[in-house]
Amino acid sequence: MSAMPPFLAACRRQPVAHTPIWIMRQAGRYLPEYRAVRSKVGFTELTRSAELACEVTLQPIRRFALDASIIFSDIMVPIEGMGVALEYAPGPVIGEPIRTMAQVDALRTLEPERDVPFVMEAIKLTRAGLPAHVPLIGFAGSPFTLFSYLVAGKPSKEFSVPRAFAQAEPEISARLMEKLADAMIVYLRAQAKAGAQALMLFESWGGLLGPHDYKRIALPPVKRIFNGLKDVGVPLIYFANNCGGSLEHIATLDVDVVGLDWRTSLAAARRTLGSGKAIQGNLDPAQLFAAPDVLKSRVDEVLADAGPGPGHIFNLGHGIWPETDPDAVARLVDYVHEKTSR
Amino acid sequence: MSAMPPFLAACRRQPVAHTPIWIMRQAGRYLPEYRAVRSKVGFTELTRSAELACEVTLQPIRRFALDASIIFSDIMVPIEGMGVALEYAPGPVIGEPIRTMAQVDALRTLEPERDVPFVMEAIKLTRAGLPAHVPLIGFAGSPFTLFSYLVAGKPSKEFSVPRAFAQAEPEISARLMEKLADAMIVYLRAQAKAGAQALMLFESWGGLLGPHDYKRIALPPVKRIFNGLKDVGVPLIYFANNCGGSLEHIATLDVDVVGLDWRTSLAAARRTLGSGKAIQGNLDPAQLFAAPDVLKSRVDEVLADAGPGPGHIFNLGHGIWPETDPDAVARLVDYVHEKTSR
Repeated sequence: MSAMPPFLAACRRQPVAHTPIWIMRQAGRYLPEYRAVRSKVGFTELTRSAELACEVTLQPIRRFALDASIIFSDIMVPIEGMGVALEYAPGPVIGEPIRTMAQVDALRTLEPERDVPFVMEAIKLTRAGLPAHVPLIGFAGSPFTLFSYLVAGKPSKEFSVPRAFAQAEPEISARLMEKLADAMIVYLRAQAKAGAQALMLFESWGGLLGPHDYKRIALPPVKRIFNGLKDVGVPLIYFANNCGGSLEHIATLDVDVVGLDWRTSLAAARRTLGSGKAIQGNLDPAQLFAAPDVLKSRVDEVLADAGPGPGHIFNLGHGIWPETDPDAVARLVDYVHEKTSR
Repeated sequence: MSAMPPFLAACRRQPVAHTPIWIMRQAGRYLPEYRAVRSKVGFTELTRSAELACEVTLQPIRRFALDASIIFSDIMVPIEGMGVALEYAPGPVIGEPIRTMAQVDALRTLEPERDVPFVMEAIKLTRAGLPAHVPLIGFAGSPFTLFSYLVAGKPSKEFSVPRAFAQAEPEISARLMEKLADAMIVYLRAQAKAGAQALMLFESWGGLLGPHDYKRIALPPVKRIFNGLKDVGVPLIYFANNCGGSLEHIATLDVDVVGLDWRTSLAAARRTLGSGKAIQGNLDPAQLFAAPDVLKSRVDEVLADAGPGPGHIFNLGHGIWPETDPDAVARLVDYVHEKTSR
C-alpha cells in the first residue's frame, strides 16, 4: 500500500487502501454554504478573490470525506488574463468573438504572475488550509474548448459557429489553439509551482468532433500541452467529455489519468487506453437523484466497469448539478470508501 | 444489382448501383424556398397542412439528386394528438409538463386518423408527387426522447429534469414510455398504410444516458415499437444519436438500419452491429462548411469507414444546419454518387 494520499497513488496506478473519490464542481451551487457566499459576490469577483476562492474550495472538504480538492476557478480566467473582455451570463460571453488571424495575433502572451496572480495566491492559501491527505488539483481548459467559446462568443447548444469555423478556417483555428496551448502550459506550470499537486485539462467540447476531426483538430494542441508539462512531475489528468469515440487517439497522449464522462463505459475505456493510464469517473450526475439503495447499485456498476485493478479514481461523469441533495453526496462518498476498503 | 430504388435496396443490404444519400432535415431553413413558405405560415400550421407539408417535402427533391424523401413533420405532432398542449418556441414547450402517474394515465390513446389525419394526407400527397425512384420515409420520436420533452416541459441543454426524474421515479417513467411506445406503433403503422416506404425512429436524446441506463430505460420501449412493426413489411430505421457507447445494446434490436451520428465511427459501428444491419450516416454537418476539396476528402473518410460492403446509406450525422450553403449540399450529393457508382 502506498504511503501517498490515495488520490495521488491512484493517479500513479499504485495500490490504495480505498478507491479515492472527488466530484467535479464539488465546490458549487448544490451546497448552501456556497450559495451563501455567492449571494454576496458575483462569479467574476469570486474567481478573483484568493480568500473567497479558497473558502469555497474548502467547503466540500469540510463536509465530505473527499480524497481530493480542486481549486475553485473557471477555465476562462486565463483568457481574461490574455486581454479578452468577457462576462459570465452565466456562461462566458465574449466582447469581440475571435474570427480573424489579426485577432489571434493580438492575443497577449499570458504571464500568470502578472495577469492572474489571484489564482496562484488561492492555490497557496488552499493548500495551507487543506488536510495533508487531501491533494489539491489545478486545472485549465483544453485549447479546442477555449477556442469554441472564443469563436462562438457565447455558450450555445451545438456550438455550430466554432465547428463551422474550424472547417472553413483551419489555419486561423490551428494558430489560435496553438497559442492557447502555449498559454495553458505556462498557466498550469504556475499552478504547480504555487502548490497544485495534480494538473487537469478539461476537454469539455472535444466531444463535438467526430474521431477523425478530434485527431486532426483537438488532439495536437492537447499533445503540445502535455509535452510541455512532462518535467513538472505532478500527475496529469485529461477529462475527455463525450469523447468515447476518440479513445484510440486519446490513448496516444502521455498523461497519467483519463477522466471519462458517464456515457463512456469504463470497461471499454480500460481496454482501449491500456494498462498505462489510470481512469477517473464516471457516475451519471442524474443517478444522485435515485433512491439510496438504487444509488448504491449504480456505484457498484461503475466499480465493476472500472475493474479490480489499480488506477481508478471515482468521480461523477460530469459536474454535479445544482439541484443535487448534499446528503446524496455524503452517501456516495461514504459508500465508495466502504465498498472499496482493502 | 437490385431493381429496387437504391435506398430501399441498401436498407435490405442488397447491392446498389450507387450509395444512396439523403439528408436529415433536408426540407428546412437552409433552403430559400422553405424560408419563403415559412415566411407565410407558422411551424404548427405547416405541420398541420397536408398541402404545405407536401410542398416543403418535395422542395429538396426538386433541387438535388437525393435518393430518399422524408415527410415534413415533427416528432411532437402525435403528442399534440394525444391531448398534450404545446407550442414551438422554437423547440417544443409543454403547457403542463408530465410529472405524475395521473397525468400519464390521462394521456389519450392515439388514433392517427382521428387525431392527426393531416400527416397521413401529407404522405399520400407527397408519395403521389415523388418520382418512383425516390422512396418516402415516415418517422416518429423514440419514447425516451418524447419523455424527455414531456417531463422537461421545454428544450434544455442537459435535460437534467427528465434525467433526474427517470432516476427518482422509475415506475412513472417506464409507464409513460410504454404508453408512448404504443402510440408510436399505431402512428407509424398508419404512416406505412398511407404510403411511407420506410419507417424511422429518432432517438434524439438516448445519448444522454450511459450504456447501463440506456439498456434499462431507453431500450425496452424501442424494442416494443420495433416488435410491434415487424409485420408491416417496410424497412425499419433507428437513428441512435450520440449512442456510440450503447451500440452493443442497439445490436440486439430487430431493425434493418441503424443511423449513426457523426461522433460514432461507422467502422466501429459495423463491427459491433454485425453484418445483419445496414448503417446510415454520418458526415458531420459542420464539414459542409469546409472548402470543396476538403469536403470531398471528408466524404471519402465516411465511405472508407462504412467499408465496401452493401448496406450503407449516406447521410449527415445530424440534421443539416440552417446556415448551410445549398450549393455545398449539391456538391455532396453529386460527389457521393460519382464516387460510389459501380
